[in-house]
Amino acid sequence: MSNEATTRDRDLTEIRRDLHAHPEAGWKEFRTTAMVAAELESLGYEVHLGSEAVDPDERLGVPSEDEIAAAIDRARRDGASDSSLDRMDGITGCVGVRSFGDSGPVVGVRVDMDALERTEARDEDHRPVREGFVSQYPDEMHACGHDGHTAIGLGIARRFAEAADSGDGAFDGTLKLFFQPAEEGGRGGLPMSRTPLLEDVDHLVALHLGLGVETGTIVAGRDRPLSNAKLDVRYLGEPAHAGAAPQEGRNALQAAAAAMQNLYAIPRNADGPTRINVGQVHSPNAQNVVAEDVEMRVEVRGATADLNEYMLEHARRMVQAAADMHDVGVETSLYGKTTSFVCDEEMVQAVAGAAEGVEGVEEVVERMDFGGSEDASYLIERVQEVGGTATYMGVGASNVAGHHTARFDIDEDALEIGVDVVVETVRSLT
Amino acid sequence: MSNEATTRDRDLTEIRRDLHAHPEAGWKEFRTTAMVAAELESLGYEVHLGSEAVDPDERLGVPSEDEIAAAIDRARRDGASDSSLDRMDGITGCVGVRSFGDSGPVVGVRVDMDALERTEARDEDHRPVREGFVSQYPDEMHACGHDGHTAIGLGIARRFAEAADSGDGAFDGTLKLFFQPAEEGGRGGLPMSRTPLLEDVDHLVALHLGLGVETGTIVAGRDRPLSNAKLDVRYLGEPAHAGAAPQEGRNALQAAAAAMQNLYAIPRNADGPTRINVGQVHSPNAQNVVAEDVEMRVEVRGATADLNEYMLEHARRMVQAAADMHDVGVETSLYGKTTSFVCDEEMVQAVAGAAEGVEGVEEVVERMDFGGSEDASYLIERVQEVGGTATYMGVGASNVAGHHTARFDIDEDALEIGVDVVVETVRSLT
Amino acid sequence: MSNEATTRDRDLTEIRRDLHAHPEAGWKEFRTTAMVAAELESLGYEVHLGSEAVDPDERLGVPSEDEIAAAIDRARRDGASDSSLDRMDGITGCVGVRSFGDSGPVVGVRVDMDALERTEARDEDHRPVREGFVSQYPDEMHACGHDGHTAIGLGIARRFAEAADSGDGAFDGTLKLFFQPAEEGGRGGLPMSRTPLLEDVDHLVALHLGLGVETGTIVAGRDRPLSNAKLDVRYLGEPAHAGAAPQEGRNALQAAAAAMQNLYAIPRNADGPTRINVGQVHSPNAQNVVAEDVEMRVEVRGATADLNEYMLEHARRMVQAAADMHDVGVETSLYGKTTSFVCDEEMVQAVAGAAEGVEGVEEVVERMDFGGSEDASYLIERVQEVGGTATYMGVGASNVAGHHTARFDIDEDALEIGVDVVVETVRSLT
Amino acid sequence: MSNEATTRDRDLTEIRRDLHAHPEAGWKEFRTTAMVAAELESLGYEVHLGSEAVDPDERLGVPSEDEIAAAIDRARRDGASDSSLDRMDGITGCVGVRSFGDSGPVVGVRVDMDALERTEARDEDHRPVREGFVSQYPDEMHACGHDGHTAIGLGIARRFAEAADSGDGAFDGTLKLFFQPAEEGGRGGLPMSRTPLLEDVDHLVALHLGLGVETGTIVAGRDRPLSNAKLDVRYLGEPAHAGAAPQEGRNALQAAAAAMQNLYAIPRNADGPTRINVGQVHSPNAQNVVAEDVEMRVEVRGATADLNEYMLEHARRMVQAAADMHDVGVETSLYGKTTSFVCDEEMVQAVAGAAEGVEGVEEVVERMDFGGSEDASYLIERVQEVGGTATYMGVGASNVAGHHTARFDIDEDALEIGVDVVVETVRSLT
Repeated sequence: MSNEATTRDRDLTEIRRDLHAHPEAGWKEFRTTAMVAAELESLGYEVHLGSEAVDPDERLGVPSEDEIAAAIDRARRDGASDSSLDRMDGITGCVGVRSFGDSGPVVGVRVDMDALERTEARDEDHRPVREGFVSQYPDEMHACGHDGHTAIGLGIARRFAEAADSGDGAFDGTLKLFFQPAEEGGRGGLPMSRTPLLEDVDHLVALHLGLGVETGTIVAGRDRPLSNAKLDVRYLGEPAHAGAAPQEGRNALQAAAAAMQNLYAIPRNADGPTRINVGQVHSPNAQNVVAEDVEMRVEVRGATADLNEYMLEHARRMVQAAADMHDVGVETSLYGKTTSFVCDEEMVQAVAGAAEGVEGVEEVVERMDFGGSEDASYLIERVQEVGGTATYMGVGASNVAGHHTARFDIDEDALEIGVDVVVETVRSLT
Repeated sequence: MSNEATTRDRDLTEIRRDLHAHPEAGWKEFRTTAMVAAELESLGYEVHLGSEAVDPDERLGVPSEDEIAAAIDRARRDGASDSSLDRMDGITGCVGVRSFGDSGPVVGVRVDMDALERTEARDEDHRPVREGFVSQYPDEMHACGHDGHTAIGLGIARRFAEAADSGDGAFDGTLKLFFQPAEEGGRGGLPMSRTPLLEDVDHLVALHLGLGVETGTIVAGRDRPLSNAKLDVRYLGEPAHAGAAPQEGRNALQAAAAAMQNLYAIPRNADGPTRINVGQVHSPNAQNVVAEDVEMRVEVRGATADLNEYMLEHARRMVQAAADMHDVGVETSLYGKTTSFVCDEEMVQAVAGAAEGVEGVEEVVERMDFGGSEDASYLIERVQEVGGTATYMGVGASNVAGHHTARFDIDEDALEIGVDVVVETVRSLT
Repeated sequence: MSNEATTRDRDLTEIRRDLHAHPEAGWKEFRTTAMVAAELESLGYEVHLGSEAVDPDERLGVPSEDEIAAAIDRARRDGASDSSLDRMDGITGCVGVRSFGDSGPVVGVRVDMDALERTEARDEDHRPVREGFVSQYPDEMHACGHDGHTAIGLGIARRFAEAADSGDGAFDGTLKLFFQPAEEGGRGGLPMSRTPLLEDVDHLVALHLGLGVETGTIVAGRDRPLSNAKLDVRYLGEPAHAGAAPQEGRNALQAAAAAMQNLYAIPRNADGPTRINVGQVHSPNAQNVVAEDVEMRVEVRGATADLNEYMLEHARRMVQAAADMHDVGVETSLYGKTTSFVCDEEMVQAVAGAAEGVEGVEEVVERMDFGGSEDASYLIERVQEVGGTATYMGVGASNVAGHHTARFDIDEDALEIGVDVVVETVRSLT
Repeated sequence: MSNEATTRDRDLTEIRRDLHAHPEAGWKEFRTTAMVAAELESLGYEVHLGSEAVDPDERLGVPSEDEIAAAIDRARRDGASDSSLDRMDGITGCVGVRSFGDSGPVVGVRVDMDALERTEARDEDHRPVREGFVSQYPDEMHACGHDGHTAIGLGIARRFAEAADSGDGAFDGTLKLFFQPAEEGGRGGLPMSRTPLLEDVDHLVALHLGLGVETGTIVAGRDRPLSNAKLDVRYLGEPAHAGAAPQEGRNALQAAAAAMQNLYAIPRNADGPTRINVGQVHSPNAQNVVAEDVEMRVEVRGATADLNEYMLEHARRMVQAAADMHDVGVETSLYGKTTSFVCDEEMVQAVAGAAEGVEGVEEVVERMDFGGSEDASYLIERVQEVGGTATYMGVGASNVAGHHTARFDIDEDALEIGVDVVVETVRSLT
């Protein structure tokens, strides 16, 4: 029996726990996408998968074909149906669309679905262990709450569908639910922002659980995340015996060293904070051989998209110049990228107003700085470009441990609060 | 049944094939040492093991305690007796001593025993596969002929013991057989050169099969190997979030980059060729974290010991300065080291003279440049320091593939030739 | 006839033009100091010169003894009396003290006196040429208005002396006038802040003409200048013929290169903006000789004194490590240094209030960011440390060309306005 | 009265001393060339000047137009005639040709004429001071003996002309005398090797006084000078205030630093010795401005022309990559270049044979390694390319101080010996 058939019978906590037990890292969310698609279809939403949901050419940090194939196999074993897997055609992500009326706006909601590549705590002090929903896979874990985001997205879908189907009236417009893949590393936001389905969105709400805010508090707009970009670099030289014929080598490791020495020297920028880091270098080579193949992972940041571009442009030039310096080849690929935004006041007020009346909400904060990076930034940027308004809402959720750590878990009471605030916000926009 | 009991019944080819099937990398030659010790004792040699054979404090590039323990377990499973393993006390290498007369000189013979950490070819084109003596271990292989060297060492021991025991007379002096561990990387020569057993050696013969010379040719003296030194470096910094608090980090990877950029700039030396290489860097770290722990492997060389010291002294200073540059800690350890030598003319003539009469010898070359590095250099240097003479002899052995490659094998006809030439040389020295 | 006798007969514009024609760069203001001292004495002020005005051991960026001697000779030729030159004992700077009453506060006023080492425009479009007060020296110029500051300082001294002497009453306290040397480069502020004469100052007013503010505007407090530090570095290696014996050299230029590559990589600091620059390198050496003597000039900055110290500490360590890297000697000296401050609200209000009633003042701005560096920061810091209050006041002065450029000149109408605002401020503090 | 009229009356020592008193650095030898041309014409030689003597487009390290103009003015003041200066058209160097017979070979002799840019000793211990022929110019000095070479060249011209004119017979062939400019730095050899006048030379003799060989010794062939190349580099960035807007700068000094750090890391070459040096960097800039204009002088060498090319190719690429690294412009020019050679045995034997019979010659050495660099190498290479033979002869000349030092002087007895050996050599070639 497929997992897809059973979703309707489960509440949001059960769904979240199912996802928590079956975490799927970026671009591998095949079971998650299949589950979401099945429920959305059963709720009357038109479902867009694969290249309808994300622009394949804009995907960043995509795993190898072998890894994708293995992820599809795993999803199939874990209950994803062949038909939905076929429809995805190797690309995760889903958009559900249902019109509830003609006169109102098109409102989008964006949630993310991917897990992290890290190991979850396995001891009894960790609730997911005690209550039986710890990750079934050793190297993947929902350590940032995206399992809850997905559940909230489905909760919103249900609420409007049930209201419409029961004749109560949902709202007089169209709802578009964006279930985004590969948020970690900033890899899925850009390609999802390129789907034509986003073009007519009048208002967009993105959301995140936790981020240092306790259950009961709603932040109506989180502003100004840092833009960042992650650049993967591979230097390809020519090996040679370092004793017998050093002149025949082309030294990929010296290229990496020259790059590192100079990358940190990208001029500081008086327009605002910038960052540069080379976190990883790998040269798996013998001591007595001129290094031939070196991988290096670079990350730049800027307080604004422009500052990030400033850093990225310099970094790209330097990475290339370092290759030229030592006459080696170089391959670069953008592993991930995010931009920045400021929430629209109209939407901040809409969320703040809606939140006031929601049960369980004890405090409403209008705006707070983001303090990190987010690739929903690309969806927000796109909506604002085409004349819409957007906000990134913080849904308080008390956590016992920090995001991205082995003991991360979320207060599941926040799930219904999140659904309620979004539903009320959407209704207020009509 | 122990493997140690059975050696006497086997000829040199059988012994070499047994060793080939059971390769043990540097400082792990427990089974090999046990086999050698057992046969030497049965032949009437006084056997010195462990710290009697090598100075433990001078050992270079020693594997971790866990790796040593695993190697001992493997040796035990492969037939090494508990008693001999106990006598080694975790240290491989063996010296056998037998006096055949009082009036003659003390003559030393040095062979090495260790295998390489590489995989052997597994197809039927490779003779060791066809004839059933391919390495039984996936990551170790006798790819440099040390299995043959060990067999030759035992052949020499047998020849003199049998001559003495049969009343034919061996030679009127004392024979010392040095079975050296860990030649690969230059790790065992220095500590074995420090054993007091070497102090009274009047003449030393070291030998190597192959090295580009065909079966039937004897090179009486191979001169002037390159000195080299391998330095393992570990930079220990302080991690920090590269976006949130870069100033709290101390960047171990930047230290490595600064070291690399400057190490290659050690001034060229008008006194002769020098070399420098950084073959390996490993920083297993996330992109967004200031790197905390970086490993780097450096190798220097010089045409002479002085030139090698020149390079090593500069390298050590630069490695430290790079740490200071980025305020990180640094640990360095010498992974291996060799020196250089010129063979004594007396010994070259002795070998050349002896070789002329040996069956199977078709050509005798007096001297040839070494063209590589060798840690027998330390034993030769020590013997020369205390007033003795030495040579490094090349025993031609046609190979189907280059040293250190997956298909390396030796022409076993060379084994008896090697034994004969050494035996005749020793006899001529009395 | 000495220039010192004639000062009292001249108005502030005449004094300023005399100084403009005789510019003296930092630590060379012998004629200027002599002129100031002579007028202060004639006005009844107790005059402190030499080591009474600045702590000799804290002086930064002091020219060579030969340069100082030449500057003294020039001052003598230009009319400075032997007696005043003797009292200075080679050290410029002057503090004038006069008590006008016992019950009021001690109020300090700080102005600077030094010129820049640059050439002044020589064409008729430049007013100082047309009106005959262009610099008489080719390599020095008052291009930052310190000639006007000195004139204002004397104007304030006159006003209070004349008031007291005429019986009108000056103010019921003590006036201390600090005529600081060597502000350019941040070399004189620190040593003048160490004079005990500053210890009992209750209120301090420092001031600057221009800085982008037009005549008629007074800025009551200019806050938060950037802290900076200028480090002069000299690498001392060993020359060698680069072809015949490169190994005998110790390469001072490679040390400088290693320093440069790494200095720019001092980690960015999340606590605020920082800056690093290497502006100058000089290696006056032949192509075929390993460089022996290299000079390098470094500048760091930080938004706060702490951030500046952070940069300076890293820079010092890296400069030393680069010397160690290439085994060369290194000498460093601090060429100049400034710190930061925030003006005290009490003083800002005092200046703002006083300015309102002054003729010629059209606009009063309470606070403005400094946007540069200032070594009056050390005097302000000292006064604040001992419990006093201080402000750095901007006296608008329309300029035809930017500060530090060849055509810089000041609107002399600003001189009397500056005197008036300070005098009224001082009076309001009693 | 022109200096040109008086040469014939003076002996070689007088000529050498006149040249010593009037040293002219590379490409500025206008007076020297005029003097040489005048004497050659008076001796019946056809004289080739300017672009007939050197290929203007191949000149290296040419001073600025202003410097050339000043050198011409100086030569004119020192007696060079307008007509000869006009014929040179701004280009120094001279070839004199005279045929003495039709059946014999074309024999070339090459001497160099330029002085060094350095100061000569001025005390009475220095013979040129005592005897009144010390350099009349503070910054130029004949400190390598080229004054003597030029005198020897004229001595040879005289000897053959006088023999022919007296009817004694010179030799039955054509003599071509190459007076080369700008040997120092290796700037004139290449362009002079391109003159068509060299194409039909059957035998070439180049020569040098001293070089560590005492008077009375002749070295018939000095072999294998080091090839070298001198590369002048100028990085052109964009200035910016290092505090206010570092991001607007493009840092020319960082480019130079990156170049330096990497140039020394050009891989050592197993084919033979190589050298690299950056001797000079000049960044005349303020501390607080991003450096805009930086000059750097690089020198590479190789034991052979190929090794030199290997170094030069890497250096050029790295110099460009360093510019790209920091996004600055770069201009490079070859300041000088030399190649290598081995003397032809035929010519070595000719010189050795001729030297045996010459008065004053006490010892003849057949071959000696050069131990330096020489741009006569290009003339020798060209003659050998077109099928001729050549040698570079050492004329012993005891010196009281080393070449290129302030007290250098030559034993003038060597002048006639040099003339004699060349004359006898030429005669033996017919």
